[in-house]
Amino acid sequence: MNEFTLIQRYFARQQQHDSVDVGIGDDCAVLAPPSGQQLVVSIDTAVAGRHFPQDAKPDLIAGRALHCAVSDLAAMGAEPLWFTLALTLPHADENWMDMFSKGLFQAAEKYNICLIGGDTTKGPLTISIQVHGAVPSQSVLLRDGAQVGDQIFVTGTLGDAAAGLEVVTGRLKTDEQSAEYLRKRYFHPEARIRAGLLLRYMASSAIDVSDGLLSDLGHLCEASGVGAIVDSTHLPLSPELLASVPTGKALEWALTGGDDYQLCFTAPPKHAEQLLVQSRNRVLDVTLIGEIVEGGGIIDAKTRQPYQYKQGGYSHF
Amino acid sequence: MNEFTLIQRYFARQQQHDSVDVGIGDDCAVLAPPSGQQLVVSIDTAVAGRHFPQDAKPDLIAGRALHCAVSDLAAMGAEPLWFTLALTLPHADENWMDMFSKGLFQAAEKYNICLIGGDTTKGPLTISIQVHGAVPSQSVLLRDGAQVGDQIFVTGTLGDAAAGLEVVTGRLKTDEQSAEYLRKRYFHPEARIRAGLLLRYMASSAIDVSDGLLSDLGHLCEASGVGAIVDSTHLPLSPELLASVPTGKALEWALTGGDDYQLCFTAPPKHAEQLLVQSRNRVLDVTLIGEIVEGGGIIDAKTRQPYQYKQGGYSHF
Repeated sequence: MNEFTLIQRYFARQQQHDSVDVGIGDDCAVLAPPSGQQLVVSIDTAVAGRHFPQDAKPDLIAGRALHCAVSDLAAMGAEPLWFTLALTLPHADENWMDMFSKGLFQAAEKYNICLIGGDTTKGPLTISIQVHGAVPSQSVLLRDGAQVGDQIFVTGTLGDAAAGLEVVTGRLKTDEQSAEYLRKRYFHPEARIRAGLLLRYMASSAIDVSDGLLSDLGHLCEASGVGAIVDSTHLPLSPELLASVPTGKALEWALTGGDDYQLCFTAPPKHAEQLLVQSRNRVLDVTLIGEIVEGGGIIDAKTRQPYQYKQGGYSHF
Repeated sequence: MNEFTLIQRYFARQQQHDSVDVGIGDDCAVLAPPSGQQLVVSIDTAVAGRHFPQDAKPDLIAGRALHCAVSDLAAMGAEPLWFTLALTLPHADENWMDMFSKGLFQAAEKYNICLIGGDTTKGPLTISIQVHGAVPSQSVLLRDGAQVGDQIFVTGTLGDAAAGLEVVTGRLKTDEQSAEYLRKRYFHPEARIRAGLLLRYMASSAIDVSDGLLSDLGHLCEASGVGAIVDSTHLPLSPELLASVPTGKALEWALTGGDDYQLCFTAPPKHAEQLLVQSRNRVLDVTLIGEIVEGGGIIDAKTRQPYQYKQGGYSHF
């Protein structure tokens, strides 16, 4: 099977999007960006044995890679448009390719994001995905907008994916129902696109929690030139996580575990009340976890000291 | 050195482009696509030991990766805007990184293309670059526009990069001046952006010669549903190539060798004459090599048979 057959067989689906004039097959894709909008783009690489277990199922790898990439669009308040795939793989096993492309397109349909091009090369298994989205001009969510006095929120629950990875690799044993939920949270970390859209005009800053809350909120604070107080007793923890590990461990994973792909964001007090109402009405699953303060770094509300956990998140080199 | 320090130190140059609202540092880059234009994008991966010699100098690797990626923009008649870099590398050696980023930015300045984001991960050396460009609406050059009776042209000279790779790997010995030229043609394959811009309103179809003339013209013919007659005695060969190998070998490389990154394009007879005038006046270095005919495949003008060389170009799997 050569590269062209492979692309034709597994990737050249004719997805319909008005904004795609030419998709896969020419030297470049040709696109019509929505007028009056800003374009946002992000590229993410996942390396076998480092970002996912070497023997993980191809459909799970593919889906997860796309979920993670799309999460960066959610953090900007953007609507997904297109993605490209640079896939390096040791050999073209038909079963593997079939499952990989199924997992990929299943995730793509979920987000209504269209595969427009890519490159397929031979080598150690590596997946790079670039996502492209659109935001109405000047309503993009950035990291650098947090102000002293803003409230800090997160969507969903934290720590589940860290626990899920432990389940996947066999290091954590728990009841089957919790295990199933946690595995799913690791392999299918739903990108919070809808939450991002709702937050466009309420949040002052946002980031997705890919490296761990302390690490990512740290980036947000650094970009905004502020500090944060976080009350760890308020961190949203799932029943399944609490059923699987002691509370101390659950909190540690919620603070430092990566891969949850929830949004962490700040909102000025005038919007904070509205967000809590939306949360009570289940329009948006957000939890208030702290407040932006002067200074830098992230303070534990209980001890009034910087959090003592070692820096979570990937730090590759 | 962690990932963030590395990006800050080597990649976060503040390049100025009006179209870049937010560059490196947030979850996504934020861009303002030029209005009234189509956006064209392409992603290319280069794997160490496969697409470039494992021990090649990092500045050469980086520059070459960007030249090759930008070449896809040239083939569309597009003007370069932005690029992203997904870099996987085994370890972050400071000297290596320093040279790599220098080579990268040197090439970027040449094309006035702006680094807007990326991902840096640990693993086997792999470089994916996505390039983005703009073309006025409806004037993009595609592969599928060739018509029977159109003339076939190539820019520059062919076969030099194939010879260059032989020089780089020590398999070909020649005089130092030719060696220097051929090495340069392999490592610095100038993307033909200016030629692409000039061809926007004259060419009926275009492709860049990355896999070899027979292979790439073959793609163009297939996309257009036509065949081609090519007169190999008209193929443009450099004096340095002819000084280094017998003419038969030079022709073989010109027909099947990859990596030249010249443009191969077709033009209707009414524009062909104008192109030849421009060539004589050295506005554009193009050579007429054949004609589009009915049918499929590529016919040797001398023998009236399909070319007998084995299929050139990369065929990875």
